[in-house]
Amino acid sequence: MATVSVKASKNYDIIIEKGALNRAGAIMKAAAGGEKVCVVTDDIVDGLYAGRLTSSLTAAGYAVEKFVIPHGEQSKCAAEFIRLLNFLARRRFTRTDVIAALGGGVVGDLAGFAAASYTRGMKFVQLPTTLLAAVDSSVGGKTAIDLDAGKNLAGAFYQPEAVICDYETLDTLSDEIFADGCAEVIKYAVIADSALFALLQSPVKAHPEQVITRCVEIKRDVVAEDEFDTGLRRILNFGHTIGHAVEANSDFTISHGKGVAIGMCAVAKASAAYGYCTKDCTGKIIDMVARYALPTVCPYGEPQLTAKALSDKKRRGSTIGLVVPTEIGKCRVVELPVDELSDFIRAGI
Amino acid sequence: MATVSVKASKNYDIIIEKGALNRAGAIMKAAAGGEKVCVVTDDIVDGLYAGRLTSSLTAAGYAVEKFVIPHGEQSKCAAEFIRLLNFLARRRFTRTDVIAALGGGVVGDLAGFAAASYTRGMKFVQLPTTLLAAVDSSVGGKTAIDLDAGKNLAGAFYQPEAVICDYETLDTLSDEIFADGCAEVIKYAVIADSALFALLQSPVKAHPEQVITRCVEIKRDVVAEDEFDTGLRRILNFGHTIGHAVEANSDFTISHGKGVAIGMCAVAKASAAYGYCTKDCTGKIIDMVARYALPTVCPYGEPQLTAKALSDKKRRGSTIGLVVPTEIGKCRVVELPVDELSDFIRAGI
Repeated sequence: MATVSVKASKNYDIIIEKGALNRAGAIMKAAAGGEKVCVVTDDIVDGLYAGRLTSSLTAAGYAVEKFVIPHGEQSKCAAEFIRLLNFLARRRFTRTDVIAALGGGVVGDLAGFAAASYTRGMKFVQLPTTLLAAVDSSVGGKTAIDLDAGKNLAGAFYQPEAVICDYETLDTLSDEIFADGCAEVIKYAVIADSALFALLQSPVKAHPEQVITRCVEIKRDVVAEDEFDTGLRRILNFGHTIGHAVEANSDFTISHGKGVAIGMCAVAKASAAYGYCTKDCTGKIIDMVARYALPTVCPYGEPQLTAKALSDKKRRGSTIGLVVPTEIGKCRVVELPVDELSDFIRAGI
Repeated sequence: MATVSVKASKNYDIIIEKGALNRAGAIMKAAAGGEKVCVVTDDIVDGLYAGRLTSSLTAAGYAVEKFVIPHGEQSKCAAEFIRLLNFLARRRFTRTDVIAALGGGVVGDLAGFAAASYTRGMKFVQLPTTLLAAVDSSVGGKTAIDLDAGKNLAGAFYQPEAVICDYETLDTLSDEIFADGCAEVIKYAVIADSALFALLQSPVKAHPEQVITRCVEIKRDVVAEDEFDTGLRRILNFGHTIGHAVEANSDFTISHGKGVAIGMCAVAKASAAYGYCTKDCTGKIIDMVARYALPTVCPYGEPQLTAKALSDKKRRGSTIGLVVPTEIGKCRVVELPVDELSDFIRAGI
């Protein structure tokens, strides 16, 4: 068991522990209080873990309601958001009651935005069941829904009372969804931790607690410096500008993790060409991505990528901030003039 | 012209000035920056003042889009909220662009929640055009929509970049809607300012700038102590617990201002009976309410009021916080056991 303490506008603990779901009720009672819990989950996780969580919550004295969404990104939408708000209101939840988000990033983002909004903020606990949610979306306080015009366009910065990561739940993930999370793990290693990069030479599944804890610490430290995403937090976007462009070009049939994997490899290649890092560094990054059965080659051409990348939120007027590795475990943000982006991308793919 | 400076999680100015709409563009450019403004308004205010605001914004260099909702409380709903978010996304607004809420409380609450949520927070300026919005809903950072199960059940605490109150717009209000705002003005005087109470012996319309400024200062000072509504801010609820119960019993055909007027009179009467204030104090409050053509007598019996009052958000477990006057310009919060509420209400009506 590991505990990572986060100090943000609200202080809370991230508990990383095999079997933690079985004592989630007691953890939540201590961290969040309240009398009622609304478990928000999807129709796959519901069958696997909702029973275990509900038993634990009931044993801790909570009254439990459950709100189940269809699995998949299409549930991270305005309609489910409003349906959840109305569910909470009909069941007379108050601002001192708790939403428990049991699932991956879709569940956590949707439930978190609802928790932020219902009565202008009720208690909220994250219970990530995917590697991606454990190391990324459950940490940092970003919640969101997608709009018709794009992903994550509405939401709130809202911190949970606790994050409870029972990494035993990762055992039921498909290889593909597990690999998605590995892309973010590799990202943390490249931008901030050469020791983690070394550790990843042996599989993540051999030491999940150590890997998750280290990733969460890195994200915690970055977010602590920049809770509201105005500066340093941008280094977490390594691989994401091109990654998002890849996802968007595929109409999101290419997953986030695969997009980020492709994006990291492209930026690494371009960074060597531009002299930000050595070719050796680039080679190590690409080898690591390949080691986790993630794609290293971009299926789209430069014009398609540039077009999508320029509509990215990370664009600021006439420049775009790109995170480039300088060596394994170190990175910096380069402000690239918008009209030089196509050259950079061409150098990367 | 008067300026009230607010220090909250964000610092901003409230500008109270006849004709301020004509220079709103310049004020917003200085306070909020950005390149595009989305004017949110209702179909009545649109015809009266949107043209004036748009001209001013255009002259200041803004590109302007307009989003119009049907007037009335039924527009403060989830459907309009989502429609506005999608409108912003389709028109490619960014987090550095601005929403300008031009209208009363419905427009301000809806537009504010959208501003808080779109890209997790974009710039926001309030331009209240009713007395109620000028002295109450535009100050303090509460934004909200109604849900099927009740009013203001979802929203955010979100501060504007500026509030621009052109009180010339109050001239086009019906007597009834103007009187609604007067109920809140009387509330401020009773809870916090005997000099304001004396001023109200002559009509609000005789010195609007002075009255609005004083009300806004009082609310500013209370909110500064309790931005997130956990304690002191409760004194702003004087008359509101019974007032909301009156509104709810009427299915909201009785306006908020009238409900608050009835609630203040009922609490004043009960407060004299319980010895919190003198009968003379109660008499002065009821006389003042009557002076502004607001109702002083409750059309509902105790059981109906108690039932609705107990489902109020202000209830905390086994007690309910009631704001009682102790003299004109002073008040305190009494924690009444829930099972004594019916007696208190009976003493008030």
